[in-house]
Amino acid sequence: MVPRYTRPEMMAIWAPENRYRIWFEIEALACEAMAELGEIPGEAAEIIRGRGDAAIAAFSQLDLDRIDAIEAETRHDVIAFLTWLAEKIGPESRFVHLGMTSSDVLDTCLAVQLTQATDLLLADVDAVLSALKKQAFTHKYTLTIGRSHGIHAEPTSFGLKMAGHYAEFERNRTRLLTARAEIATCAISGAVGTFAHLDPRVESYVAKKLGLMPEPVSTQIIPRDRHAAYFCALAVIASGIERLATEVRHLQRSEVREVEEFFHPGQKGSSAMPHKRNPVLSENLTGLARLVRSHVIPALENVALWHERDISHSSVERNICPDATVGLDFALVRLAGMMDKLIVYPEQMAANIESLGGIVHSGEVLLALARAGVLREDAYKIVQRCAMATWTQLGKPNGRTFRENLDTDPDIAGRITPEVLDAAMDSCSHLKAIDDRYRVVFGETGSVAG
Amino acid sequence: MVPRYTRPEMMAIWAPENRYRIWFEIEALACEAMAELGEIPGEAAEIIRGRGDAAIAAFSQLDLDRIDAIEAETRHDVIAFLTWLAEKIGPESRFVHLGMTSSDVLDTCLAVQLTQATDLLLADVDAVLSALKKQAFTHKYTLTIGRSHGIHAEPTSFGLKMAGHYAEFERNRTRLLTARAEIATCAISGAVGTFAHLDPRVESYVAKKLGLMPEPVSTQIIPRDRHAAYFCALAVIASGIERLATEVRHLQRSEVREVEEFFHPGQKGSSAMPHKRNPVLSENLTGLARLVRSHVIPALENVALWHERDISHSSVERNICPDATVGLDFALVRLAGMMDKLIVYPEQMAANIESLGGIVHSGEVLLALARAGVLREDAYKIVQRCAMATWTQLGKPNGRTFRENLDTDPDIAGRITPEVLDAAMDSCSHLKAIDDRYRVVFGETGSVAG
Amino acid sequence: MVPRYTRPEMMAIWAPENRYRIWFEIEALACEAMAELGEIPGEAAEIIRGRGDAAIAAFSQLDLDRIDAIEAETRHDVIAFLTWLAEKIGPESRFVHLGMTSSDVLDTCLAVQLTQATDLLLADVDAVLSALKKQAFTHKYTLTIGRSHGIHAEPTSFGLKMAGHYAEFERNRTRLLTARAEIATCAISGAVGTFAHLDPRVESYVAKKLGLMPEPVSTQIIPRDRHAAYFCALAVIASGIERLATEVRHLQRSEVREVEEFFHPGQKGSSAMPHKRNPVLSENLTGLARLVRSHVIPALENVALWHERDISHSSVERNICPDATVGLDFALVRLAGMMDKLIVYPEQMAANIESLGGIVHSGEVLLALARAGVLREDAYKIVQRCAMATWTQLGKPNGRTFRENLDTDPDIAGRITPEVLDAAMDSCSHLKAIDDRYRVVFGETGSVAG
Amino acid sequence: MVPRYTRPEMMAIWAPENRYRIWFEIEALACEAMAELGEIPGEAAEIIRGRGDAAIAAFSQLDLDRIDAIEAETRHDVIAFLTWLAEKIGPESRFVHLGMTSSDVLDTCLAVQLTQATDLLLADVDAVLSALKKQAFTHKYTLTIGRSHGIHAEPTSFGLKMAGHYAEFERNRTRLLTARAEIATCAISGAVGTFAHLDPRVESYVAKKLGLMPEPVSTQIIPRDRHAAYFCALAVIASGIERLATEVRHLQRSEVREVEEFFHPGQKGSSAMPHKRNPVLSENLTGLARLVRSHVIPALENVALWHERDISHSSVERNICPDATVGLDFALVRLAGMMDKLIVYPEQMAANIESLGGIVHSGEVLLALARAGVLREDAYKIVQRCAMATWTQLGKPNGRTFRENLDTDPDIAGRITPEVLDAAMDSCSHLKAIDDRYRVVFGETGSVAG
Repeated sequence: MVPRYTRPEMMAIWAPENRYRIWFEIEALACEAMAELGEIPGEAAEIIRGRGDAAIAAFSQLDLDRIDAIEAETRHDVIAFLTWLAEKIGPESRFVHLGMTSSDVLDTCLAVQLTQATDLLLADVDAVLSALKKQAFTHKYTLTIGRSHGIHAEPTSFGLKMAGHYAEFERNRTRLLTARAEIATCAISGAVGTFAHLDPRVESYVAKKLGLMPEPVSTQIIPRDRHAAYFCALAVIASGIERLATEVRHLQRSEVREVEEFFHPGQKGSSAMPHKRNPVLSENLTGLARLVRSHVIPALENVALWHERDISHSSVERNICPDATVGLDFALVRLAGMMDKLIVYPEQMAANIESLGGIVHSGEVLLALARAGVLREDAYKIVQRCAMATWTQLGKPNGRTFRENLDTDPDIAGRITPEVLDAAMDSCSHLKAIDDRYRVVFGETGSVAG
Repeated sequence: MVPRYTRPEMMAIWAPENRYRIWFEIEALACEAMAELGEIPGEAAEIIRGRGDAAIAAFSQLDLDRIDAIEAETRHDVIAFLTWLAEKIGPESRFVHLGMTSSDVLDTCLAVQLTQATDLLLADVDAVLSALKKQAFTHKYTLTIGRSHGIHAEPTSFGLKMAGHYAEFERNRTRLLTARAEIATCAISGAVGTFAHLDPRVESYVAKKLGLMPEPVSTQIIPRDRHAAYFCALAVIASGIERLATEVRHLQRSEVREVEEFFHPGQKGSSAMPHKRNPVLSENLTGLARLVRSHVIPALENVALWHERDISHSSVERNICPDATVGLDFALVRLAGMMDKLIVYPEQMAANIESLGGIVHSGEVLLALARAGVLREDAYKIVQRCAMATWTQLGKPNGRTFRENLDTDPDIAGRITPEVLDAAMDSCSHLKAIDDRYRVVFGETGSVAG
Repeated sequence: MVPRYTRPEMMAIWAPENRYRIWFEIEALACEAMAELGEIPGEAAEIIRGRGDAAIAAFSQLDLDRIDAIEAETRHDVIAFLTWLAEKIGPESRFVHLGMTSSDVLDTCLAVQLTQATDLLLADVDAVLSALKKQAFTHKYTLTIGRSHGIHAEPTSFGLKMAGHYAEFERNRTRLLTARAEIATCAISGAVGTFAHLDPRVESYVAKKLGLMPEPVSTQIIPRDRHAAYFCALAVIASGIERLATEVRHLQRSEVREVEEFFHPGQKGSSAMPHKRNPVLSENLTGLARLVRSHVIPALENVALWHERDISHSSVERNICPDATVGLDFALVRLAGMMDKLIVYPEQMAANIESLGGIVHSGEVLLALARAGVLREDAYKIVQRCAMATWTQLGKPNGRTFRENLDTDPDIAGRITPEVLDAAMDSCSHLKAIDDRYRVVFGETGSVAG
Repeated sequence: MVPRYTRPEMMAIWAPENRYRIWFEIEALACEAMAELGEIPGEAAEIIRGRGDAAIAAFSQLDLDRIDAIEAETRHDVIAFLTWLAEKIGPESRFVHLGMTSSDVLDTCLAVQLTQATDLLLADVDAVLSALKKQAFTHKYTLTIGRSHGIHAEPTSFGLKMAGHYAEFERNRTRLLTARAEIATCAISGAVGTFAHLDPRVESYVAKKLGLMPEPVSTQIIPRDRHAAYFCALAVIASGIERLATEVRHLQRSEVREVEEFFHPGQKGSSAMPHKRNPVLSENLTGLARLVRSHVIPALENVALWHERDISHSSVERNICPDATVGLDFALVRLAGMMDKLIVYPEQMAANIESLGGIVHSGEVLLALARAGVLREDAYKIVQRCAMATWTQLGKPNGRTFRENLDTDPDIAGRITPEVLDAAMDSCSHLKAIDDRYRVVFGETGSVAG
């Protein structure tokens, strides 16, 4: 992910420093466990912990360079690290990594990094939820037109729109938690996962200390169906971001103008057209969603590794683990800010509802006729006729509103009263279930304060 | 999905007959609920139920043709069905679909179909689990070489390989259950989800009767993040199938010959080469996995519909819902059968372990040297030197086994005894944790009977 | 692809009858070539051709059933066909398929089918081009607002929009031709492509007769990079369809109303809302584009087959070859019809241009100031100020047009004359390069007749 | 793309310095063109060129920081650059970017960068071709077993395998050239592509100077079907890399051992198992192929932008343009080196051919029987019987070779002579068409020198 879309909090998780810190932690914990089991001297474990902690605390660019230099020769990243560590620890280093294989360190570390990343993402989702809830409660009774197919359907409330997205992000939160559990496992099982040179209790110990679960069967590596499921969850969330971003982009269209992204003083929308105020944040989110989504396919292709493991997944994960978490983190934070500061134009919403001459109330009129005993088929034809007459003359000098057409339709006359028509054309009737839904979504009907 | 890869059980779920049966059920239940709420006459609900049930029970090709004919005119599938239904029910049909919108029927029906499909898939996964468990217990102590990078690593047991796949399919089972919960929701909320013309209790009633949960906010439609998550789960499972299929394909290679798919009498492997016995089932599963995986992207693209809904998801789902469930069902059933009948060659497995002159025991020798006080770095060089000498002379007249090279290496002499080397080169040492793992995976260590 | 989105012309290409017809043709041609080379008796080739042609001409459901029955036993489709063919031909059948392998028949047949499919698609693209050209010439001078970010930018012409899509479909036509050449190759090279039992001249002969090129190196099969490239081309075209469909969907939005899909008499837009006229064709095309696009990934995954071939690509291709060509064919034909009958509303386009109070002319005013010697930075600020003042008061009682704000801005006064401002705000100035572009795109500036 | 998989040559193309250099070049060329057309003073164009060239030549971190600082305020990258440029050029800067829009600069720059990147990729492909040709000519007559389904089929030559990949990379070269032509277009057409404030000849001039073609219709931006097609081409090439990498991985398997990647002195294959020599380069290429392939979907999703443009493609392209070209460049260079240094073991290849007791010659024996007048069906059964008897007893004490079984089969006796069987079992017969194929692929039959 290019720096432009990177927050330092998330990037730090993927920095070499954090990786080496976790690698050492895994090695040190394994030594502690082996010492407890009497497999290595307790004193050795203490020295490893002590000198290692110190080396990690003092970790600098020099250490990075040193490790890189060793890797250039051995062409093996874990061996390079262990060699560096041995230089820091001294003779007791011979007890480090005993019976373990590189993947024990690499995969358990990846699990730790992904849980760290997920915790950041959970906080991000909470910020999105908070912004959505604020808008939902502020605009609980703000009438706006509901649209299907991009065409005006029936009135709804802007708050309910927000509640719908809130409910989706609640599901996304749950998906993140499930995904976190998927990848939060630990493997310290040796070359092909048989614990040939290791006691399974070492794995249990390390897992517990790191807040992970032991992997039931690790075949040198933690199986990649877990990671595939993880990236799928991120992709679903990214798609939810895109849905909300698309809503904002639509509502900010010049012809709609119901909401607007916050436009900073000094901001320029276009080098050529000074009048422009573009929904660039939501457009950007749309693109970021495409990126995060694109990681699903290589993550799925990573599952079918050969036998106990091949290393084809490695180059994929070196890229998509940071790219997907950094990209999604950035997108969620941007989304939360965008929704929090979103400018809403209730008057324009009200105006748009009425802009089609009242035909958006055709469904209620249809029902009124049905209740009055008109056969559904017949009622449909009558109402469609009146609506289309309004629609096709919209904005024309002799154009008549839907109500005018209804009032003069011979098949309506005498069947329903003007009062019934009045009621059918009252947008507020669409708000009657809103308390019920808010209770379902938020657990409360809400005061404006949220 | 072409008929070749279609089981009738799954295809029946997607047949028009099943769809219309569910559509009617939804409409009839909604009528019952409205009758209970006093919104329509109880008698009408009874007539609708009675005549509708009869019409559905007698449903034939004639009815299909009639509905198609109406749709050809109205260009609207639900209206076509409702018109046909009205013809069967008579005047009381005016109480059908009251205040509802087409998507209330379509999306709730899709939820029912997907839960039906998922229940089949769960049974399929159980069959896979059963076959894997059988092989795992049969071959708990069948030694075989573990491979990383396609290169011999250390011995493991064929049973443990199976246990690993079993554990993955247990996870897949959990993912299916989660996915089922994702899509098992009901929406009866009207044109833009406001319940403008409907009591929310109608939705609750229908949901309960159908075994679904009410959708918190349906915006005419059930939000598509649910379906995206569902297809993701199928894709992860498909990838797990591919992993196991790839294992079988590898083990059946002419040079490996450790397992073989069952070859039917009369079967021909090649039109030109009568000697061929090919792993065509597992290759076929590999291809089917690609297909099921490919549905993830359009399912994710379906999430960001416009406003309260657009209909772009419809053509996608008309294809991928049957394609993915039919394809995965076929693949799982094929996999279960293939694994159940898989022919395993333990002698060949044993021969392969030894085929590299014993170098697969290098890790254990390395540890023995380390335990004897040799610095890891030095030990590594000694063991690598002996292994490479064996490797490069493999099959050559003067080639020496790894043990022969170790026995004569000046840096080993005197440091570890022949008995220690004997122990280090005993494949059975790799089985010592197998009870532990079987307990974790199966909850039991197992008898051969499984 | 479900029947709903299937045209019989394309489906016929993928029917078993067509496949068997081509299979026989390949076998018969190979026999003719071998007879010419003196490898089999000329008389035998004649008998094979004669009896085979007759059998194919009389091909019926009985033959299909017979072949299926043989395949059920042999589990090999080509052997099943050859056995059936032998029953029809008699003893001379022993010269059929001599030295060939199944894939020689299968892959060469697929090449023929894909070229047939591509020829249909080329005709479809021509129909799209024709409809686009008609609209482009009809609306060459129909002013409409150009939009970036969904926000009004500057005026353009609806004809130029159409010309842009025309240019894209011209590129798509070229891509189809390139894709056709990619897959139009023939392989008659035996079990692993060594021509061990075949003369390469047989391949050349068959290729020439079928209008194909001989494959340089076929490793039992025609390499799948060709097919991957083919599906990529279809996906790019599908995305072009989506772009145009998205344009129509946007322009038909209730707030925009600049175009409308043809609405059939009797058509119903919604079961609940009789007033609805929805852009369902373009939404449907959006979904179909997702489907065709989704085939790219499995097609790419099919490339890396094992060694001289594995059969994992087969199940993929049995589905995606018909699905992608049938889906794209349907989409292109639907698109051509939709664009041909598209209803365009020039008055509404004109009204929309002016609906933002003239601020869409800000770019031209900026340039006028620049030409008058105002520094770009300063000019930008002045024009932005005037535009924003208009924008934020849009539709409000005291709202002022952009021109009113410009006329009273102290920094403009005296710098540019009202005549210059008049010119800057004339939409027609945006049409001055249209002849130039039409010449580039269509090779002619065009009369309305097109 | 992480630095690990990045070559500086390719990364430099995507560095800000190169971008700003190209941006300035476009602006300067546009000024020259306008000066030629008399639209701006010739002197101004000269000053712009002179001072700008100097500023670009002296471009340093300070300039980067300055541009970033301006962008932080304006939130617009091109405006930030133009402001910086104005500071360097002085008053004449008012003639810069006149009538142009940001995308004129951005998209034309991207076209230049992508052509630069493609030229590097073409050189990379040439290196791959060269390595493949070397191996093809060195091993033209090196017999090896051809495999279908991972099962031994018939002998072929290792050179022919290489020739097949060579032919694929020749196609990839052609695809790259086509892709280069796709994206090598120039747009200088203003805010919505109408040339409202620009003469089309400015575009022609800039295009020509940059080696690009003018874009027929640019709607503010260059249409994204071009870029989608470009990324598709990269994905097809990546899949070809994967095919070759998969071949090497298979051939290096412990049981196959026919080739080996070069293993560096000092290299360590595993931290736990000193005997390991893993095909890590080809596994890495497999992973990189997944990455490059994954960019296809977002690139295709970028096509359907809204109206004359939206900016959702931007965040996608900021990532995938460098990621895909850098990743593919690295992969191709790695592949070329790997294939150039590949160690080939002809003796092991020969041994593997014979390892199945001769049954790989079953096809030729089948043909010999057919030529001797045995019906194909009968011949098949006889040969299959003899082959299976060998196969199932492979490696067993009483196992008999295929030839031994043939010699004693009652249905063969007297039908074909031992000499015919000798010929049928001669692997060299599979080389007879190799000159023919080399002529097709390389245009020459080749000497070992290549």
